[in-house]
Amino acid sequence: MDTAVMLQCKQGVALLQDQLDRVRHALRQLADEHAATVTAGRTHLQHALPVTFGYRCAVWLSALDRHAERLEQARGRALMVQFGGAAGTLASLGPGPEGLETRAVLAAELGLRDPEITWHVARDGLVELVTLFAAIGGSLGKVAWDVMMMCSSEFGELAEPFVPGRGASSTMPQKRNPISSEPMFAAAKLLRDKSSTVLDAMMQDFERATGPWHLEWAAVPEAFLLLSSSLHQAEFMLSGLEVNVDRMRRNTHITGGLIVAEAVMMGLAPVLGRQRAHDVVYDACRTAIETGTTLDAELLTHTALVDQLGAERISELCDPARYLGSAVAMTRSVVGTI
Amino acid sequence: MDTAVMLQCKQGVALLQDQLDRVRHALRQLADEHAATVTAGRTHLQHALPVTFGYRCAVWLSALDRHAERLEQARGRALMVQFGGAAGTLASLGPGPEGLETRAVLAAELGLRDPEITWHVARDGLVELVTLFAAIGGSLGKVAWDVMMMCSSEFGELAEPFVPGRGASSTMPQKRNPISSEPMFAAAKLLRDKSSTVLDAMMQDFERATGPWHLEWAAVPEAFLLLSSSLHQAEFMLSGLEVNVDRMRRNTHITGGLIVAEAVMMGLAPVLGRQRAHDVVYDACRTAIETGTTLDAELLTHTALVDQLGAERISELCDPARYLGSAVAMTRSVVGTI
Amino acid sequence: MDTAVMLQCKQGVALLQDQLDRVRHALRQLADEHAATVTAGRTHLQHALPVTFGYRCAVWLSALDRHAERLEQARGRALMVQFGGAAGTLASLGPGPEGLETRAVLAAELGLRDPEITWHVARDGLVELVTLFAAIGGSLGKVAWDVMMMCSSEFGELAEPFVPGRGASSTMPQKRNPISSEPMFAAAKLLRDKSSTVLDAMMQDFERATGPWHLEWAAVPEAFLLLSSSLHQAEFMLSGLEVNVDRMRRNTHITGGLIVAEAVMMGLAPVLGRQRAHDVVYDACRTAIETGTTLDAELLTHTALVDQLGAERISELCDPARYLGSAVAMTRSVVGTI
Amino acid sequence: MDTAVMLQCKQGVALLQDQLDRVRHALRQLADEHAATVTAGRTHLQHALPVTFGYRCAVWLSALDRHAERLEQARGRALMVQFGGAAGTLASLGPGPEGLETRAVLAAELGLRDPEITWHVARDGLVELVTLFAAIGGSLGKVAWDVMMMCSSEFGELAEPFVPGRGASSTMPQKRNPISSEPMFAAAKLLRDKSSTVLDAMMQDFERATGPWHLEWAAVPEAFLLLSSSLHQAEFMLSGLEVNVDRMRRNTHITGGLIVAEAVMMGLAPVLGRQRAHDVVYDACRTAIETGTTLDAELLTHTALVDQLGAERISELCDPARYLGSAVAMTRSVVGTI
Repeated sequence: MDTAVMLQCKQGVALLQDQLDRVRHALRQLADEHAATVTAGRTHLQHALPVTFGYRCAVWLSALDRHAERLEQARGRALMVQFGGAAGTLASLGPGPEGLETRAVLAAELGLRDPEITWHVARDGLVELVTLFAAIGGSLGKVAWDVMMMCSSEFGELAEPFVPGRGASSTMPQKRNPISSEPMFAAAKLLRDKSSTVLDAMMQDFERATGPWHLEWAAVPEAFLLLSSSLHQAEFMLSGLEVNVDRMRRNTHITGGLIVAEAVMMGLAPVLGRQRAHDVVYDACRTAIETGTTLDAELLTHTALVDQLGAERISELCDPARYLGSAVAMTRSVVGTI
Repeated sequence: MDTAVMLQCKQGVALLQDQLDRVRHALRQLADEHAATVTAGRTHLQHALPVTFGYRCAVWLSALDRHAERLEQARGRALMVQFGGAAGTLASLGPGPEGLETRAVLAAELGLRDPEITWHVARDGLVELVTLFAAIGGSLGKVAWDVMMMCSSEFGELAEPFVPGRGASSTMPQKRNPISSEPMFAAAKLLRDKSSTVLDAMMQDFERATGPWHLEWAAVPEAFLLLSSSLHQAEFMLSGLEVNVDRMRRNTHITGGLIVAEAVMMGLAPVLGRQRAHDVVYDACRTAIETGTTLDAELLTHTALVDQLGAERISELCDPARYLGSAVAMTRSVVGTI
Repeated sequence: MDTAVMLQCKQGVALLQDQLDRVRHALRQLADEHAATVTAGRTHLQHALPVTFGYRCAVWLSALDRHAERLEQARGRALMVQFGGAAGTLASLGPGPEGLETRAVLAAELGLRDPEITWHVARDGLVELVTLFAAIGGSLGKVAWDVMMMCSSEFGELAEPFVPGRGASSTMPQKRNPISSEPMFAAAKLLRDKSSTVLDAMMQDFERATGPWHLEWAAVPEAFLLLSSSLHQAEFMLSGLEVNVDRMRRNTHITGGLIVAEAVMMGLAPVLGRQRAHDVVYDACRTAIETGTTLDAELLTHTALVDQLGAERISELCDPARYLGSAVAMTRSVVGTI
Repeated sequence: MDTAVMLQCKQGVALLQDQLDRVRHALRQLADEHAATVTAGRTHLQHALPVTFGYRCAVWLSALDRHAERLEQARGRALMVQFGGAAGTLASLGPGPEGLETRAVLAAELGLRDPEITWHVARDGLVELVTLFAAIGGSLGKVAWDVMMMCSSEFGELAEPFVPGRGASSTMPQKRNPISSEPMFAAAKLLRDKSSTVLDAMMQDFERATGPWHLEWAAVPEAFLLLSSSLHQAEFMLSGLEVNVDRMRRNTHITGGLIVAEAVMMGLAPVLGRQRAHDVVYDACRTAIETGTTLDAELLTHTALVDQLGAERISELCDPARYLGSAVAMTRSVVGTI
């Protein structure tokens, strides 16, 4: 029975690897296309510094790339033939070397690993697979969470692929629900609980468990289905994602340019000195917040500053696109050549 | 801050690898010493077929050997330097190549992996560590469960190391509580919940999470401590385990020799024919159970059988030690040369 | 030892009840004050229909009110004296009625419930407390999630209480991190895992468990601390919450008034007929979305419509504050008289 | 949709209450019948003091009795009508009192509670049900674990109901697997994970959740099925349980009577003085363990002791049936009159 499970797992893992590759491909294209698309970097849901949307996609992708490596290693290690009889000893094949020889031939024929010893109550292989599925599901859940927030009416930066009738409401024409992200988010949490179940099921007594074994029957098939479903939604959603580049850019300005406060401080420091640069920018920020203007506008009212730097340089310093650091280079490093 | 965590993880993983090696060493010695110690193989807590105690230890060991391989791979992959600034872009180092170059030098200096891109919200590395710790804890929990049952008054096959006052009671002198197995069992379950926590914490929004990050602060340090504690208990307990070889042998006979029913059927089949062998043994078993005798004694009352095979051959067939299949060979295969 | 735990639980529950009452009080005040503060009702993070901020607070409150009832019931049921000796039988007090009489007196003296029988391995009482704590934590986590999203730069509807230096950044003056919501959100998830731990710990063997008992030692005290901490953050945060009433109102209009599309359809139906009302509004919505105008403005270009209804009535229909249904009445029903 | 769920829950809870009552009935009968059946009380899987099997059943029962009370309270509180429209405000029914009046009538008609306010995103009711199911499942899991250990070949005190072919093996005639206890044990753990899932699903954003809602769809129906299945197995298994009264009695003696060491110390203390009684018994115990005799036999070799107390009194003191304390009285207190 365990060998049958392993053969199913082998097929299932191959399907999942294929799906994972397709999701990575979709992300690679998104990251490549939007490597320079400026958007607000957010920490604690507050604007922090500008990043690019491609950079954000590349961070998502980097986790999936590592998962692909893990899945390949797990495949070679965890998919082992099971052949041992009632207590795992191959007793019915006699005390000679025939038992182990038969097992080796069987393993070769089925394309499974030949283990050193029967693993009927050493379930670390199945656990490796399911906890990894949960981790992959978690990485996809992070994508889903980011996407659904960017799809919100207030953010308005993304929309899931438009298909007539999909995610819509007959009386609320403004709606475009993120209905791929939602099951991805849910799958992450369900996979986490499957992972919890199989970890518990490791404590199998003696040579065949009294109860814990049953846990796998419920958790393992569902884990495959959940991850497959999440990858399916991810591929569909990421392949057709509508990116509102303009709204991303506009959103970077909703804090009145304060998102570049750090940049401006750094830029003024060589001219004004570090402390004075800090004070000038901090004051300008406070005024901008209180009066509803922008940092840019505030700084341009400092005639001394304008005289020293020129209006153009000040505007340059206030441009989020000029304070991206290594975001694009990192994105390229993950994406590689397409 | 993430880099500080990684440096601590690096040290912690090295300590855990060392502890794991010592537990594997203790198990290797137990498995070697008891490779031929006959004991009842149990499935569903019922006697199934005879195995050896060394074989059981070798099954435990085989999981830990695979875990050691996993831990080595995770160490190389998951321990990455973090260096990115507020939004991960290294913006304050400017737009040129200095950012990534600095990060590479830092990684080399600290002995951490230099990632392709900032992983501040791609927490798969920490998750790989903690889920693996939970899996190792689960394998130790299985050892603990088996041991505590073998320590029970009714099984009486094992006792945890005797230290005056340890696991004892002033009014119940018969007690010898399995007080190393208990925290190992508990640690497995607590580690499972830490694993659940960090999987949930993967869903970190945008460039720094609003809440989920805090989960790691609670779960990651405890996961290290719990696994370390479980490994410590395991090493102590397995190194000084009292194995009651005689009781193991006697327990294999408490079902009146029925544990070798399969063996006797196989042994009689060439002489009596398959179906008749099955019937003779099944009848003898039923009589043995009902009258409280043994299969051995029952078969010796069949004069025809005794005439055909000789009493000695019948006794041989009823000897659990002669129906171990590849148990010893498998054990040697896991243990290797000591 | 269990009785000592119960005495601590008794004190702890009393403290938690007090904290819960204070959080409910803070919510009652918020709900009362903002019973009529119009804000966007959101489903799937998309604007759906207008609600009031007080209504949202009252929904939060309604769950806490039910929890208060549960906690009171659990307190009376779960806090039982434990007095039974090694196997729970009170054997050392002899076979007569003294044992049970002593236990009754002890229970009365300690203010704990006198159970029918020893509950040393019937841990449903502790489980009732901890799962309830997790549920309360979950309800607070929902509050936290809503709040932190409303605090985001893009929503801008709430800010956590301002205390100099709290949730701020020296280089990013625009930040005001929701640092009370974050630990509330995290506590919900950690409490969920404590709940999982104590549920697992119910399977305690025979008359005193071999391992599972230890789980409670880790989970129960932490569950009290986590809930207390979450309630503490909730009280602080809700008592000083800054509500940006103006931004809430403005946000209801960011979909160009489409949030009242349903309302307008309902209002026009008696005049135009149901189907035609739907078509007129749907067309106006589509135009408003495509051209960046508002539903209001679009409808006012329909001269026939204006002639029939008057411009004033059309503006009225497009006012979110006039499509709140029973939101205010429901809020009053939860809040009661203050 | 939520109301449909509530109507299904209402029916489901009624079925579960009925099943729970039948399991309690079966346990009441077992506890009554075996109120005086002496068996070994075990702590940490070591013999501690004698108890009765009925007492053990009554401890199981006491938890289920408390659960029945909880379920009744939860039924009245958690089963609420849901009627609110897209954002829960009943906006389409207008701003007057009709909305709430209609809801009240609907609630009365459906036999559901009429809540103060829409609970679409206040999921504490469903959570109360599912966490309670998990707690009931945990209490049944404890029964299962105890039973499966008492069914083990070494304990031999119980057997699940015999039905031809049930739990048997064609080549291992000695087997009688505890195949009802196993799914009960597994269900406890799966229910724990469902509980974890719905607790997580409490954090539903705004007026309808983006992802978390889906979790309930997976977890709630399965929670009903799992608990129903566990109760079904429990009723079947407990109603036909084979109790080996003789083996229970014999097992109490496998530690050579040491299980009554505490009893004998207490009995000798009035005659010998407390300290000397302790020393005499402790020495006798040690000799009994080392030489394989019994405490009884050892004490009878003390001629001084025999002279003082008489052989009969010594044998009485060594009788486990005479050191049961309030076990029987407690059992009666739980069972009541049958």
